[in-house]
Amino acid sequence: MTTSETTPGSAPNRQVEVEEDVLRRVLDSFSGCTDPRLREIMEGVVRHLHSFIREVRLSEDEWKYAIDFLTAVGHITDDTRQEFILLSDTLGVSMQTIAVNNEAYRNATEATVFGPFFVDDAPEVPLGGDIAAGAVGEPAWVEGTVTDTDGRPVPGARIEVWECDEDGMYDVQYGDGRTAGRACLYSDEDGAFRFWGLTPVPYPIPYDGPVGKMLSAVGRSPVRAAHLHFMVTAPGLRTLVTHIFVEGDPQLEIGDSVFGVKDSLIKPFRKQSPETPTPDGRRLDGQEWSRARFDIVLAPEEIT
Amino acid sequence: MTTSETTPGSAPNRQVEVEEDVLRRVLDSFSGCTDPRLREIMEGVVRHLHSFIREVRLSEDEWKYAIDFLTAVGHITDDTRQEFILLSDTLGVSMQTIAVNNEAYRNATEATVFGPFFVDDAPEVPLGGDIAAGAVGEPAWVEGTVTDTDGRPVPGARIEVWECDEDGMYDVQYGDGRTAGRACLYSDEDGAFRFWGLTPVPYPIPYDGPVGKMLSAVGRSPVRAAHLHFMVTAPGLRTLVTHIFVEGDPQLEIGDSVFGVKDSLIKPFRKQSPETPTPDGRRLDGQEWSRARFDIVLAPEEIT
Repeated sequence: MTTSETTPGSAPNRQVEVEEDVLRRVLDSFSGCTDPRLREIMEGVVRHLHSFIREVRLSEDEWKYAIDFLTAVGHITDDTRQEFILLSDTLGVSMQTIAVNNEAYRNATEATVFGPFFVDDAPEVPLGGDIAAGAVGEPAWVEGTVTDTDGRPVPGARIEVWECDEDGMYDVQYGDGRTAGRACLYSDEDGAFRFWGLTPVPYPIPYDGPVGKMLSAVGRSPVRAAHLHFMVTAPGLRTLVTHIFVEGDPQLEIGDSVFGVKDSLIKPFRKQSPETPTPDGRRLDGQEWSRARFDIVLAPEEIT
Repeated sequence: MTTSETTPGSAPNRQVEVEEDVLRRVLDSFSGCTDPRLREIMEGVVRHLHSFIREVRLSEDEWKYAIDFLTAVGHITDDTRQEFILLSDTLGVSMQTIAVNNEAYRNATEATVFGPFFVDDAPEVPLGGDIAAGAVGEPAWVEGTVTDTDGRPVPGARIEVWECDEDGMYDVQYGDGRTAGRACLYSDEDGAFRFWGLTPVPYPIPYDGPVGKMLSAVGRSPVRAAHLHFMVTAPGLRTLVTHIFVEGDPQLEIGDSVFGVKDSLIKPFRKQSPETPTPDGRRLDGQEWSRARFDIVLAPEEIT
């Protein structure tokens, strides 16, 4: 009699034992891992993958589909296209990671996704300068203050801003080396800042690959709600990566494809007629423009 | 006063609310999915990914590492190398999927991983024939029966077997079109089968890529316990994909790198001296050989 002919137990219980035995063996395989954090992460990955398979009773065809999907995600990814980040973004994985790493603290401004279009060393503009630098769209005057959570102004905060043009394209997407719609500036002695940019418009994330197919299969829009990116850094304070969104943008109702929206980050971009005098006397040649305010509150670097 | 300056709540509770809000928004995004199974799977993926991030408090650097790791897995994958399957195998995901899809049933033989080396339309050999077909290694006589779970013989069951040579290489890995170490045969009117193959030897899965690096980082062996693959099909019965393992193989203690081992599948390959007469009178020219028995019990196709 071979061991495969042992007395059958109660089938459902035996099935649970079989599945738990697989999980236990995999978890045990990490017992020789000398890096405790790596072990914690690998065990977490394994526990959740196995729970997922057991809960949904994943079929072998579905497993195969997942392998093929990930393979396609890998194959479209290159130096200029990062489909794994798109996948992370569209499953809210990026946003949840940001939530976990930017703990809610008093009145500190909320963080949101970084996105793939940030560029180091964007040109500096003076306060009140124009970050559009040739990017086409409706001019927007954006102003605000940078303070700490006790309301003290933060002078000299480095404020990096970037956004797409009215066609939904960032400068780097044109691939011709242009720099437009991005700049860095510094808050003044009162923590105040101001600049000209463009009224943000909605645009789709790249949807011609496997992530786009996934969004289509589940009936989701690939479009991001209109937004203007900020990264704000100042000594002793937590770096803030965030956006502001445009109050009234219909995509806010439809849903931002990467879940970046926080209610606290939705700001009115108040429409101004061409005749309305601009704050700095700039002449806009009959164009409509908008103005928005964003008061930024930075958390301490170390939250206790 | 902007919405970012609302009264602060208790920080830890607010943090939980923020994280749950991200999850809720992502789950809500699937509300328009018209395929209920796809929706169930996507919701399961999202719940577990988010729980994982929240439990381990995944850092942004760790997230970046994961993106880079998956990118490397994608880039090494091509028509002949499937690193996502290796990843699935080495995290026990493949084995758990098999467990879920091959429900424990009475005395039915347990299933295990399929592996990447199966080939359709392997040559048929008669009962007692040699599947090695030139593959080098210690000859092994393998015999057994195919029955159903009531012990009734299954005549004419299609038995496909495949294995590596003594260098740990499957025929397809040589890339020269050879067919060796694989065949198909059919059980006789008593459900019995017998063939010559090779005594299985341990071999490593490909470990020169990101999965190999992962195994090394966590202190795991890439080696698979020695095994001989079977796929057994018969009308009205559940197809069985399994291996038999070699009792006494030291890798069984170290751990099979893809978690394929079930105690019920470990079989003695009894060593025979060159002088021992072979079951079919085959002359082995002074070589040692082994013999093993594998009695296969097939579950019904539909388990109620």
